[in-house]
Amino acid sequence: MPIRQIAIGRYQEETHPNILKMALAEFISTLIFVFAGEGSGMAFSKLTDDGSTTPAGLVAAALAHAFGLFVGVAVSFNISGGHVNPAVTFGLFIGGNITLLRGILYWIAQLLGSTVACLLLKFATGNMTTSAFSISSGESVWNAFVLEIVMTFGLVYTVYATAVDPKSKGNVGIIAPIAIGFIVGANILAGGAFDGASMNPAVSFGPALVSWDWTNHWVYWAGPLIGGAIAGVVYDLVFVSHTHEPLPSTEF
Amino acid sequence: MPIRQIAIGRYQEETHPNILKMALAEFISTLIFVFAGEGSGMAFSKLTDDGSTTPAGLVAAALAHAFGLFVGVAVSFNISGGHVNPAVTFGLFIGGNITLLRGILYWIAQLLGSTVACLLLKFATGNMTTSAFSISSGESVWNAFVLEIVMTFGLVYTVYATAVDPKSKGNVGIIAPIAIGFIVGANILAGGAFDGASMNPAVSFGPALVSWDWTNHWVYWAGPLIGGAIAGVVYDLVFVSHTHEPLPSTEF
Amino acid sequence: MPIRQIAIGRYQEETHPNILKMALAEFISTLIFVFAGEGSGMAFSKLTDDGSTTPAGLVAAALAHAFGLFVGVAVSFNISGGHVNPAVTFGLFIGGNITLLRGILYWIAQLLGSTVACLLLKFATGNMTTSAFSISSGESVWNAFVLEIVMTFGLVYTVYATAVDPKSKGNVGIIAPIAIGFIVGANILAGGAFDGASMNPAVSFGPALVSWDWTNHWVYWAGPLIGGAIAGVVYDLVFVSHTHEPLPSTEF
Amino acid sequence: MPIRQIAIGRYQEETHPNILKMALAEFISTLIFVFAGEGSGMAFSKLTDDGSTTPAGLVAAALAHAFGLFVGVAVSFNISGGHVNPAVTFGLFIGGNITLLRGILYWIAQLLGSTVACLLLKFATGNMTTSAFSISSGESVWNAFVLEIVMTFGLVYTVYATAVDPKSKGNVGIIAPIAIGFIVGANILAGGAFDGASMNPAVSFGPALVSWDWTNHWVYWAGPLIGGAIAGVVYDLVFVSHTHEPLPSTEF
Repeated sequence: MPIRQIAIGRYQEETHPNILKMALAEFISTLIFVFAGEGSGMAFSKLTDDGSTTPAGLVAAALAHAFGLFVGVAVSFNISGGHVNPAVTFGLFIGGNITLLRGILYWIAQLLGSTVACLLLKFATGNMTTSAFSISSGESVWNAFVLEIVMTFGLVYTVYATAVDPKSKGNVGIIAPIAIGFIVGANILAGGAFDGASMNPAVSFGPALVSWDWTNHWVYWAGPLIGGAIAGVVYDLVFVSHTHEPLPSTEF
Repeated sequence: MPIRQIAIGRYQEETHPNILKMALAEFISTLIFVFAGEGSGMAFSKLTDDGSTTPAGLVAAALAHAFGLFVGVAVSFNISGGHVNPAVTFGLFIGGNITLLRGILYWIAQLLGSTVACLLLKFATGNMTTSAFSISSGESVWNAFVLEIVMTFGLVYTVYATAVDPKSKGNVGIIAPIAIGFIVGANILAGGAFDGASMNPAVSFGPALVSWDWTNHWVYWAGPLIGGAIAGVVYDLVFVSHTHEPLPSTEF
Repeated sequence: MPIRQIAIGRYQEETHPNILKMALAEFISTLIFVFAGEGSGMAFSKLTDDGSTTPAGLVAAALAHAFGLFVGVAVSFNISGGHVNPAVTFGLFIGGNITLLRGILYWIAQLLGSTVACLLLKFATGNMTTSAFSISSGESVWNAFVLEIVMTFGLVYTVYATAVDPKSKGNVGIIAPIAIGFIVGANILAGGAFDGASMNPAVSFGPALVSWDWTNHWVYWAGPLIGGAIAGVVYDLVFVSHTHEPLPSTEF
Repeated sequence: MPIRQIAIGRYQEETHPNILKMALAEFISTLIFVFAGEGSGMAFSKLTDDGSTTPAGLVAAALAHAFGLFVGVAVSFNISGGHVNPAVTFGLFIGGNITLLRGILYWIAQLLGSTVACLLLKFATGNMTTSAFSISSGESVWNAFVLEIVMTFGLVYTVYATAVDPKSKGNVGIIAPIAIGFIVGANILAGGAFDGASMNPAVSFGPALVSWDWTNHWVYWAGPLIGGAIAGVVYDLVFVSHTHEPLPSTEF
């Protein structure tokens, strides 16, 4: 099934009001996700008086992100495709599944959603800090860079295999939002102790902006975007059969 | 698909015995949910001799509510629509999806279900206190008010996107009860450390009544109802296409 | 849809080899479930040198039982109906959904499965004790009795609403095994601190037999059976529409 | 439905490029799974300065493996069948569901995937050790051997019942990847405290190779392969009805 054809089919659908609704859905989904995810880190600081991360704290962070992203993806799945992540949007663009215009609007919506979530968290917690992602001691910036690449590769590969690939329809496609949320939860249980395990530039951007802490911020963009792009190229080249027949009806 | 039409279609279905069965389903679902959710807090008190919340305790509370609400929604999904929450009922009423009569009966059933759950918990735990929701130190009542609005917005938006919107049928609609339960779990991992993260007036009402502790109780009504109403208005206005054709068959 | 008719329809299907296969499926499912569930308690004892339960330990027990029962139900769902619990079998018998003969064979299979799981655990852990369920201090036997009734009511009600009721087909029926497993997880997070939260006579029987500790054992039979029977009667009377038309084809 | 027939049907499909794509899918899935699973153990060591396992640490390991395997199975489900485990591949071969050639290629891909995951983890964590699986004190090698047999029996039985058996289509088949991931999570909560609970020779091989620690390594091959084979034989003999009619179309 030619995924690229789906993208072409979408050019026609992308009327002005539709594409703004899609961007609004991405904004709200990212807000819901970041509110729970970043909020869980602030709850840990509250409960432990800014103690350092423990295994129980890592479990809490993993579940908050897994459950929150699952829901964020589910609620925008039928409107915008449920990206909730600039790296996912970029990986889908690289594989030819969305237009440049839509991608740019999604990025803006996702970054705004994360920022508004952090501002709301700041107020709702009585002015606590929305801590930016940071790299643990003993971990170099290049270690973190590779970590983000590998983890985001896994995430965007999951998006392709469960939500984009037409073969997933009727079986794993139904549980795609759970898979997408839970791979982030699984990766946080591994990478969270080393660099926070962002896999998502929007998730890192909001807290960095609101707390105005940009240390190593580029890692949380470059890593996820490269990992997402590799996943898009690999999946599109290897696992999608490109035929030349026109596609009668496309949905995704 | 005109969701409003579904509501109109339902007026006809709402014969007397049917609507009482629906209310009974809401009563039992809320009882099951509150028994597990409030019970998990009492278990924490039991195991820690009323210690203050820890990250592991927050994880336990989040999972009990996530799993319990998922099941509460699932078991009443095909009978009453699986509200299990006065804020959900209110948000669906605001969006024009249920009648006023049904809404009032649901509220009564939900509040009764929570109260009976707390009475049963009190007996089953050897007369322990069913602690009411409270606001942490360092957190103002207005912080908690905003927190409840934002979190309940996310919950009712999830109900609309996964269970009410006809587009969700056959894909995310199948996992809607999981999404609805898990957004509550995710939000508890964030907001639970600040105001208990109720998002549900019935969940707050039962413990407050049985332990007769009404401190700041209004926040746990006003916040969720406002958040739920905003979600209903936004989703209905933006993401539901209102056409004028009659709907041949309605199911929800 | 007349659930009672389904039971009658099954009388015909219940040829000798089929019913033995069903019982074998129940045996294996209960073995898998109890191995993980009871094993998680023994793992806690191992890691903490028989320390008393902590919130993290309760989370571990809840997840082991939730995940294990979900899988136990899923793997026998299409063969035996996925009971994995004498209280579920009894509740379905009371509601007229299985024959007496099948019920008795299921009970034997479930009790055997739990016993074999405990014997395997005893060997696989280097001869550790398979601790029987017990009632916490401060909790009377009647408190525990009511606790088991309420929690098992919730469990068997979940089985009826998501797996037996024909309305669940194609929506919540697909996630029924998850709901059935997770209500047990939710209830353990509440009741686990008070009486272990069994909700299942087979789960209590195996450890009691292998460790030969029968203190208050009757509570873990009487509570679940009464709770399951109430759920069967309530669901069958209220939520199942009994018509008199013959059912062309039945599947469960 | 004759599962054996499906295998025969597959001989024809197994053109050269297809089978290499299948192996690549297994490689990537195993990489994603082991990265999260083994990484969660390294995160625990990082956070606790190589402390010994606690109940919270066991929960973290169980969730990382449950979520990671669920996703690993889901993303290769429609390409390679989602084995992600030499014991699953062996159990399916024993039951006559895949060819020898495909089985050998899968094994190579799975072992490579695990090894690359460990090399990436070693770099991404700033050169930490990828600890091999080991047997706890008080636990003999034969205890661990039986433990691995029983747990892997449960895993491969789950694969058969939810993913191979045609009866699972349209109901539990849709949630098969979740069931397969979660039985591993449940078993880790039990067996993780005794021998690490591998159930998967690839999961044990990568860390052993990269840290060059082969103590008792044979147990993590012999146990899972025997357990998987027993599950394949039992399920195929008892629960699959072997007819002699040709199968018109095969998918799995």
